[in-house]
Amino acid sequence: MMTMRPDSLYTADYVVTQNAGRDVIQRGALAVAGDKIECVGHTDVLTALYPETRRVDLGRAVIMPGLINAHTHVSMSLLRGYSDDKALQEWLQKDIFPQEAKLTPQLVELGARFSMAEMIRSGTTAFYDMYMFEDSVFRAADEMGLRAVLGESTTEYFPTLVAKDKEAYFDLIRRYSAEWADHPRIRQAVVPHAPYTTTPELLRECRDLADETGSLFGMHLAETPWETQHCLEQRHLRPVAYCAQLGLLRPDTTFFHLVDVNETDMQMLADGRCTGVYNPASNMKLASGVCPVCALRAAGVPMGLGTDGPASNNAHNMLREMYVGSLLQKVHTLSPTAAPAQEVLDMATLGGAAALHTPYIGSLEPGMKADFIALDLSAPQMQPVHNIISQLVYAASGAEVRLTVVDGQELYRDGIFRTCDYAALLGEIQEALAWTRK
Amino acid sequence: MMTMRPDSLYTADYVVTQNAGRDVIQRGALAVAGDKIECVGHTDVLTALYPETRRVDLGRAVIMPGLINAHTHVSMSLLRGYSDDKALQEWLQKDIFPQEAKLTPQLVELGARFSMAEMIRSGTTAFYDMYMFEDSVFRAADEMGLRAVLGESTTEYFPTLVAKDKEAYFDLIRRYSAEWADHPRIRQAVVPHAPYTTTPELLRECRDLADETGSLFGMHLAETPWETQHCLEQRHLRPVAYCAQLGLLRPDTTFFHLVDVNETDMQMLADGRCTGVYNPASNMKLASGVCPVCALRAAGVPMGLGTDGPASNNAHNMLREMYVGSLLQKVHTLSPTAAPAQEVLDMATLGGAAALHTPYIGSLEPGMKADFIALDLSAPQMQPVHNIISQLVYAASGAEVRLTVVDGQELYRDGIFRTCDYAALLGEIQEALAWTRK
Repeated sequence: MMTMRPDSLYTADYVVTQNAGRDVIQRGALAVAGDKIECVGHTDVLTALYPETRRVDLGRAVIMPGLINAHTHVSMSLLRGYSDDKALQEWLQKDIFPQEAKLTPQLVELGARFSMAEMIRSGTTAFYDMYMFEDSVFRAADEMGLRAVLGESTTEYFPTLVAKDKEAYFDLIRRYSAEWADHPRIRQAVVPHAPYTTTPELLRECRDLADETGSLFGMHLAETPWETQHCLEQRHLRPVAYCAQLGLLRPDTTFFHLVDVNETDMQMLADGRCTGVYNPASNMKLASGVCPVCALRAAGVPMGLGTDGPASNNAHNMLREMYVGSLLQKVHTLSPTAAPAQEVLDMATLGGAAALHTPYIGSLEPGMKADFIALDLSAPQMQPVHNIISQLVYAASGAEVRLTVVDGQELYRDGIFRTCDYAALLGEIQEALAWTRK
Repeated sequence: MMTMRPDSLYTADYVVTQNAGRDVIQRGALAVAGDKIECVGHTDVLTALYPETRRVDLGRAVIMPGLINAHTHVSMSLLRGYSDDKALQEWLQKDIFPQEAKLTPQLVELGARFSMAEMIRSGTTAFYDMYMFEDSVFRAADEMGLRAVLGESTTEYFPTLVAKDKEAYFDLIRRYSAEWADHPRIRQAVVPHAPYTTTPELLRECRDLADETGSLFGMHLAETPWETQHCLEQRHLRPVAYCAQLGLLRPDTTFFHLVDVNETDMQMLADGRCTGVYNPASNMKLASGVCPVCALRAAGVPMGLGTDGPASNNAHNMLREMYVGSLLQKVHTLSPTAAPAQEVLDMATLGGAAALHTPYIGSLEPGMKADFIALDLSAPQMQPVHNIISQLVYAASGAEVRLTVVDGQELYRDGIFRTCDYAALLGEIQEALAWTRK
């Protein structure tokens, strides 16, 4: 293997590798060359190997793979806390949709940038997003430095905010594809909203468009028992079987939620080599139900972890999501052994890489992209460290993140955002208040 | 009403009062005189009223009542992350009890002080604790400046670590009572462990001892369906009815957990004017079940909120507890309107005051004790502020706390602990690692 001289050597009390052996290295080091990880090992060994490399000693900290938020709607930070504690249809119809109808590309970009600051601050390095005016999100992700799979979502109800008809929507996807092809960190997905807001024709055409444009494919699926009922009534099939019939169960497909799935559904998803995303906080807050994430994984469906949008979470905090995700499985199955810490950490890293179809992230190993974070271990909740994985999943608040790196570039370190003027952004986000009061 | 000249005037963008009208004051101020709140109102009004009072302007922040952790075992921070993801009996018998058998008063005090730093750092101003060597916790709470109800717990299995027999245990309670009588912030509770680890005689005698020593009374109750089954087999009554038979359902009694309670149980608890404590994270992590906290409140049982000990949570983070506590009720009842934000905030403040039998805390009103906290609103998850209560319950991580005040004394402000040398404490807590490896 050709080796490069590293640019930087990051050292800390612990390195959580998430490699095949799930090795945790005490007094560990990570050598970064360009946008890749060159070497991972003991600090003594790596400092001897690279004596002249710039060293960043993080001390009482843990270095780990960047967290991957496999399902969100970043721009909905605009509506964080705008409406809570309501029945789903009332929440959507009375509060969310009327605000969204007034959205502009400028507002969507602001919300996206603000959420990306939140993700960077809390240790997320990659995410899978779907919303409207998504070109605003492409621009924001490009500038903020995060890795992303981004999709302009649609329903069958044309004209939408972004397209007067289906052809205009397809043209938009083709345009994004041309504009963002070969971006080192950003890839497009074609993301129809859900089975209950689309026609079979639209879904088939979206699938073809994904192939035509080299895009990934994603969709909300089986989020609630209501959706299953609706699909049975309208299509005479459960949602997963309906997608199978339309040819949507393919390896480049990611389905978000998968709450109301039975064993047959799981087997179909596994046979189709699809990936799924578990969104525990959103499923709890909207009272959608409980995704059988452990059974899905056992059936062979790779599962990522996502926050869903900040209007239904209400934060982009993947450390909190891991916590909630583990606890929900334990209480739902009445087994304290369900969804152990290592398993949810796997979902938030390796599972996320599967859901984003980015196999070059999710673990810290030579040759992988240099997407990593470091958490401070000096806050009270992080001590003593009997088991670092337990600390990350069960004790961390999310605010311990000291460092966020994507493609070898530091996006945040010790209070300083490197790719945005956070104080200015904080001033701008107040515009969300004026917008909702219009 | 006699008015005092305030010592300090705290001002911020928001004051969440938790008064009867649940008023939130924009550009609000809190005037503190000695250990009490003198006045709450608009900043303009209070600065005009008290022009010469020292002003602490917190700016983009929210001032609110200190959070009340109504059930924990603070010293178990020593075992945070030592063992997770195991079946309850295996966890207790193989991992927790063997470590606890090696405890010393010094270790218990260290764990207590460390947890108190964690609570102070994350906005908790008062707590209800039960453990062994509790005199160590009394000393720690006295020094750290928190408000507390503290109980030396016992089972029937004498000799215990602290008492060779029942009489020795009773003498210990009498001694604590003499030593800590009339403390301005600390009160004793008599706290037998649980129905399944005690005899009816011991419980009756503990109840008498509480009366004799002027102590409160608390106990774990109805934590799991297993406990109900065990109680039915041994005592031919469900746990609540068993307690009723023993005369334990009284207004100075607080029961922790109350997971497996039916409508009859709830009515008995309400008739006895008992208070209860909801511990959602612990109940989820140990897979105990779901406390019907909304039904208990509806039945007339005041409910506090608690983290339980850090070996089964694994943090003392009351902001996270509110979040989890709301979401668990929503998904369990499949109703997104269950346990709305204001209701869980009430549990963490006014409900906690009921559970600790300290009616002079829990809201910010003239004459109440000056127990309050302030959270920074400039972190991304805290913006924009459509609804400050939603931000506190659904978005805050717990790390936003900038200020923690008990009895008018600042215990923490902007990174500085005023009642402990946190760096030294962080060094000392490493002893927990040596202890578990003995």
